[in-house]
Amino acid sequence: MAPESEEVSVPIVKMQAFGERLFLALGVPEAHARVTIETLIEADLRGVESHGVAHLADFYVRRMLRGRINRTPRIQIVSDAPAAAVIDGDMGLGFVVAHRAIDLAMEKAQATGVGLVSVKNSTHYGAGFHYALKAARRDMIGISITTGGNIVVPPGAKRPVYGANVISVAAPTGKGFQYVLDGSTSVVAGGKLEIAARRGASIPEGWALDESGAPTTDPTVLSRGGGLLPLGGSPQMGAYKGFGLGIFADVISGVLSGSGASLALPPTGAASHLLAAIRIDAFEPTREFVRHMDVMIDGLKAAERQHGVDEILIPGELEARLERQRRAEGDIPVHPAVIESLRTAAEKLNVPFDIR
Amino acid sequence: MAPESEEVSVPIVKMQAFGERLFLALGVPEAHARVTIETLIEADLRGVESHGVAHLADFYVRRMLRGRINRTPRIQIVSDAPAAAVIDGDMGLGFVVAHRAIDLAMEKAQATGVGLVSVKNSTHYGAGFHYALKAARRDMIGISITTGGNIVVPPGAKRPVYGANVISVAAPTGKGFQYVLDGSTSVVAGGKLEIAARRGASIPEGWALDESGAPTTDPTVLSRGGGLLPLGGSPQMGAYKGFGLGIFADVISGVLSGSGASLALPPTGAASHLLAAIRIDAFEPTREFVRHMDVMIDGLKAAERQHGVDEILIPGELEARLERQRRAEGDIPVHPAVIESLRTAAEKLNVPFDIR
Repeated sequence: MAPESEEVSVPIVKMQAFGERLFLALGVPEAHARVTIETLIEADLRGVESHGVAHLADFYVRRMLRGRINRTPRIQIVSDAPAAAVIDGDMGLGFVVAHRAIDLAMEKAQATGVGLVSVKNSTHYGAGFHYALKAARRDMIGISITTGGNIVVPPGAKRPVYGANVISVAAPTGKGFQYVLDGSTSVVAGGKLEIAARRGASIPEGWALDESGAPTTDPTVLSRGGGLLPLGGSPQMGAYKGFGLGIFADVISGVLSGSGASLALPPTGAASHLLAAIRIDAFEPTREFVRHMDVMIDGLKAAERQHGVDEILIPGELEARLERQRRAEGDIPVHPAVIESLRTAAEKLNVPFDIR
Repeated sequence: MAPESEEVSVPIVKMQAFGERLFLALGVPEAHARVTIETLIEADLRGVESHGVAHLADFYVRRMLRGRINRTPRIQIVSDAPAAAVIDGDMGLGFVVAHRAIDLAMEKAQATGVGLVSVKNSTHYGAGFHYALKAARRDMIGISITTGGNIVVPPGAKRPVYGANVISVAAPTGKGFQYVLDGSTSVVAGGKLEIAARRGASIPEGWALDESGAPTTDPTVLSRGGGLLPLGGSPQMGAYKGFGLGIFADVISGVLSGSGASLALPPTGAASHLLAAIRIDAFEPTREFVRHMDVMIDGLKAAERQHGVDEILIPGELEARLERQRRAEGDIPVHPAVIESLRTAAEKLNVPFDIR
């Protein structure tokens, strides 16, 4: 998404330094602060503003102040096999826990071809793509799956009882971008409703149900007990597939790590993840893999297009284009309301505010 | 699905023996014949009639007679690491190749916690769930992914250029059934259009596009160059997620195995797969896993229901119920047209026809 006209440009280096200082003032170790802010900024660089610094003050800092995120977690490997592990995140920042988990998965993939790390007692890790992309940049297929809040309604039900669980996958190509799938297993993520609400817009029918289980176009419905529909929307359009994929995410993160599925997690922000790395050259030479990826991409992009469509976009392509452009400019776009939330946090924590 | 009134009951043991004789007459090794027929019958037992013995004569036998399936393949492991392998199926029956691959994946999972086997030069392996379920019955999470025919239209395109790729996952529970996800990454599988066509019914708008790229309700559209839409249907309803999932399936089966994505496969019926096994007790005790599965299932089933809905069904639940019932009865329901196709094949191959 292009920055909206009201957004202001903030230099990456200033945002990084400011964000780190906020976390340091909260007692977060320097390495944890650095990787968390880098990851949030990566979301903004790639146009995923819903999961970037917009959440820094109002979500992560606030949760830490409320004691819902452990400032100095003792992250531990509690179960270990050559290609498998469980990490206990000790309720630390999800970014830190997930980076640790994908690093461990990559280490295992280096040794055995595959590494699969299920994570319990973590917290919100931002966008899912970061960790998958980290593996893709090292010639692996990266997979990142997480539980989300209990805001999705199973087919046939009236109310939300399971998580807006997210599946992310990334793989290298020879095209200057990585293939990146990053999507919740609901029709849309909850953030899409927040955006519509901020704009005073209604949402399309088929995204959500209200608190009585009826279709709605009201974007504020989640705050009153309504819920999102699984990808597919209706049973006729494949909602059982979206439901099944959501359950899969629960099984491989929450259940496999031993903390339980999304519906059993306490509503205090605990999250479970699955981070996996698949080393390509354990299967075939990486150059062959990339060649086949490029043949696929060329074939998809060569498809005859609908009227008005300029280009068939591969998942991850647009985001990489934005990231390249924004890194070259050295700035990320930030909404004025977010700037104000950061200013308020800086005052509260007695940290100099100098991101402009 | 309950058997339609016109269907006839065929004893499982008779169908097994007859099917094996058909393949033996074609020169297929006995073990290959046995596992293929067992797998086809398992689809019928679980109500997946679109992928059962209905395809035996008109699809598998016919393709073998045309030389598109190798009767005596030399299935080989062409790349091997502790948790990873590539199998070359030598164009053998996909059932045989996929069973070999999930067995190898389970063997690796026994040793390292995880086994991931990418398969090239295979052929149609029936329904995806069989191989995932095989692992789930041995206290593993099973994953089975395959390329399908090039009948799906990417968002923004007019014509189909990638596969109706299928993702299947299974995991054990303590509820007398396994969780089983088994669905194509398109809104519906091509088989749903075949069923509508046989019944003279139209299909809902949103399933497919015609050969000019326009929405259609004609179920025969695939035979004229039309295509299915990705799960989600329209971009507004999440079609980029369905597209991304379809590409993921291509990446991890076709690209990772070295044969290329669905769009690059020859239109002669070659298929690529991914079979994976995740040994649960490499992560946590299996009884803990099952306990968390059951808590999840109880929570989902306890959700307040829409008017007219008797029960929230977990993916795999209905199929297990049908399988139990049909195994107890000892029969599968078979459509008279399928009976005729089997009779014709028996005559052609000079095999006694005695399934009634």
